[in-house]
Amino acid sequence: MAEPLKIALAGLGTVGTGVIRLIETNAELIARRARRPIAITAVSARDRTKDRGVDLACYAWEDDPVVLAARDDVDVVVELVGGSDGPALALARNAIAQGKSLVTANKAMIAHHGLELASDAEQAGIALKFEAAVAGGIPVVKGLSEGAAANAIERVYGILNGTCNYILSTMEATGRDFGDVLADAQRLGYAEADPTFDIEGIDAAHKLAILASIGFGARLDFDAVDVSGISRIKAADIAQARALGYVIRLIGMTEIDTAGSGAGLFQRVRPHLVPVDHPLAHVDGATNAVVAEGNFMGRLLFQGAGAGDGPTASAVVADIIDVARGERGAAFAMPVDELEAMPRALTGHRTGRAYLRFTVPDRPGVLAEITAAMRDAGVSIESLIQHGRAEEGGEVIIAMVTHDGPESAVSAAISLLEGSDSLTAEPLVMQILGS
Amino acid sequence: MAEPLKIALAGLGTVGTGVIRLIETNAELIARRARRPIAITAVSARDRTKDRGVDLACYAWEDDPVVLAARDDVDVVVELVGGSDGPALALARNAIAQGKSLVTANKAMIAHHGLELASDAEQAGIALKFEAAVAGGIPVVKGLSEGAAANAIERVYGILNGTCNYILSTMEATGRDFGDVLADAQRLGYAEADPTFDIEGIDAAHKLAILASIGFGARLDFDAVDVSGISRIKAADIAQARALGYVIRLIGMTEIDTAGSGAGLFQRVRPHLVPVDHPLAHVDGATNAVVAEGNFMGRLLFQGAGAGDGPTASAVVADIIDVARGERGAAFAMPVDELEAMPRALTGHRTGRAYLRFTVPDRPGVLAEITAAMRDAGVSIESLIQHGRAEEGGEVIIAMVTHDGPESAVSAAISLLEGSDSLTAEPLVMQILGS
Repeated sequence: MAEPLKIALAGLGTVGTGVIRLIETNAELIARRARRPIAITAVSARDRTKDRGVDLACYAWEDDPVVLAARDDVDVVVELVGGSDGPALALARNAIAQGKSLVTANKAMIAHHGLELASDAEQAGIALKFEAAVAGGIPVVKGLSEGAAANAIERVYGILNGTCNYILSTMEATGRDFGDVLADAQRLGYAEADPTFDIEGIDAAHKLAILASIGFGARLDFDAVDVSGISRIKAADIAQARALGYVIRLIGMTEIDTAGSGAGLFQRVRPHLVPVDHPLAHVDGATNAVVAEGNFMGRLLFQGAGAGDGPTASAVVADIIDVARGERGAAFAMPVDELEAMPRALTGHRTGRAYLRFTVPDRPGVLAEITAAMRDAGVSIESLIQHGRAEEGGEVIIAMVTHDGPESAVSAAISLLEGSDSLTAEPLVMQILGS
Repeated sequence: MAEPLKIALAGLGTVGTGVIRLIETNAELIARRARRPIAITAVSARDRTKDRGVDLACYAWEDDPVVLAARDDVDVVVELVGGSDGPALALARNAIAQGKSLVTANKAMIAHHGLELASDAEQAGIALKFEAAVAGGIPVVKGLSEGAAANAIERVYGILNGTCNYILSTMEATGRDFGDVLADAQRLGYAEADPTFDIEGIDAAHKLAILASIGFGARLDFDAVDVSGISRIKAADIAQARALGYVIRLIGMTEIDTAGSGAGLFQRVRPHLVPVDHPLAHVDGATNAVVAEGNFMGRLLFQGAGAGDGPTASAVVADIIDVARGERGAAFAMPVDELEAMPRALTGHRTGRAYLRFTVPDRPGVLAEITAAMRDAGVSIESLIQHGRAEEGGEVIIAMVTHDGPESAVSAAISLLEGSDSLTAEPLVMQILGS
């Protein structure tokens, strides 16, 4: 059998520890599949003494992760430090500069610096791989860049953040409110102490920008993603949606928009109403799912564990096995020079159905004011629920679903109501996912 | 840009024509992704004059497909002739002998001769690829052999035949009987004039044997697949299943069974009752879906179009792009010499819940005889439906669902009833898909 492929591991959190456990547990099988053994030679983390449940004695230790890249006994650097810049980026740049292949699970770093790193990797003739950065254990980077490679991709969308999906599906199952379920999720380890990146949709946006680049051969443009999170969703929204035949999911969606003067790249992360008979409506808990539509393959769905040490380690090691097999690939499915810089798509012409929720004071005339604004902006209402009567002087919830129509009309209606004392909070608008 | 990769196409049915349309339509995109153009140079089919809706004038024509392999202007042979032996196999062997890579959609040929071809391909140092042979447009061969490569695979199961799934989901939607829906499916082109391979489960078994070999590193063993089809399923079965909270799907399932004296390979294609809240219960029409469970990644689901010219062409051309990129892979995820010959798993110890359906004459004492046989064999009945009263002297249907128990007990109960004049037809037994 060939020489082992020698790996250095930077970052020994749950994923890093998972990678060690996986490589140790499945060593014999991996060697058969990779046609050579995979050997960890050196590791680095912040705290050498911490008990991680794995024995590190047989691996060289470096306090400074960046030093790993310079070691002679390392072929591949696995970056699991995290963070878009700082030591992760320093290590990544250094690994490539040293001619070492780089495997990472770092979506933030790839979303912000992926093109620079991919371009340097091409120059250096080494592999840059980040399957674990998108949708955890689901091989969707490979599915899109290789499995779907024969297709003009028309649309990619899905559930890309396990924390949000856990919170939304738990709110749905229990009827409890957002803050309550978030606190539980934090206690259970499903949400970070600072959950902003997850609940405000930024993590999903990192992943979406990566998928958009791979799917459409577009230059990665994270800053152009239109992002809203789930923190404003109330138990009442979930209940109203359910009564109307929908569940609420945070959906990342990207497509090429050819309306207007030329092709534009549409990238959006927003909570959506998903019809209960849609495959994504059955995606519960920390599960992720990605749908890709192509001009020959039709619709493809990938679903699996979006996070967790085992699934993420599975994706990291799949990348390592690809490198061991000599299958280097292009980081974004084609050379960086071939990627097209695409303008942000205009959205004014987009149409669809929408859910609108208003919190209003419990007094006469409010409903008339809201419905008049809808009429004046040309928004046609399909159904409307006024949520029971609140306590004396309290708030009342009005939820409605519109007929198919321009998104711009809904925005116009909301603008007409701006500053009105008939609204006690900013209205919440969610798109309804089409078929 | 590099030299074009030159392709010969044997077989110009719907898939072959689809491959031509795809390569022509997406030529520019494919060249960017493959980092070289893909050019069809020669084609072969039975009838040169037939109008296929594509212009063949720019491709060299061979009456004999086997001759394609010998042409100097061919790098890759694409075999779409079909059939496990005959010209397809002759072409495949000849292509490999000539040092040409081989891409095929031929599940029967791979199920019967895959190891021989893969071994020869390894010797010749060329690629053998067959993504399109399993589940049409779904990249599940790649997903399992590369995406899931870091895992010990524990189980692979799914809906592998679009014709059966179309028939079962149409029976479910319309309440019509099997023969009726099959005739319609034949008229609509969803079923062949001779539908035996599809409806008797053989096509699904071909695909399952291929997945088992890739997933478990086992030598391919099609003859060991335990196969039953869907032709004995009645509208009444679908109705009873629905009343009990299930749909009926033809499920292929393979796992490593370690009960008994050593690891055995379990491979089975059978209609199953699937709980309505299981992801596979929502797979309707000609859609296919495959679930793979691994020791680190957990459960992964791949779903998409299982047949049709576009999706199948998408998978064929994805393989060609892999070859163009120089990513040769091993046909069964590891060298043929590394594949283990595994005995067929014993099934006597398997447990689960089952659905049993009896057609009986409408007279007293029948139910007592059946339930006595269940008791004597130790089968515990969870629920039982006696389907209304038939016309005078007609047949009555008794359907039941058992508690969790050994499959062998159910077989024993059926044996006890063998030859009884209380049964007017052979009983139908279907497993219930566990979680």
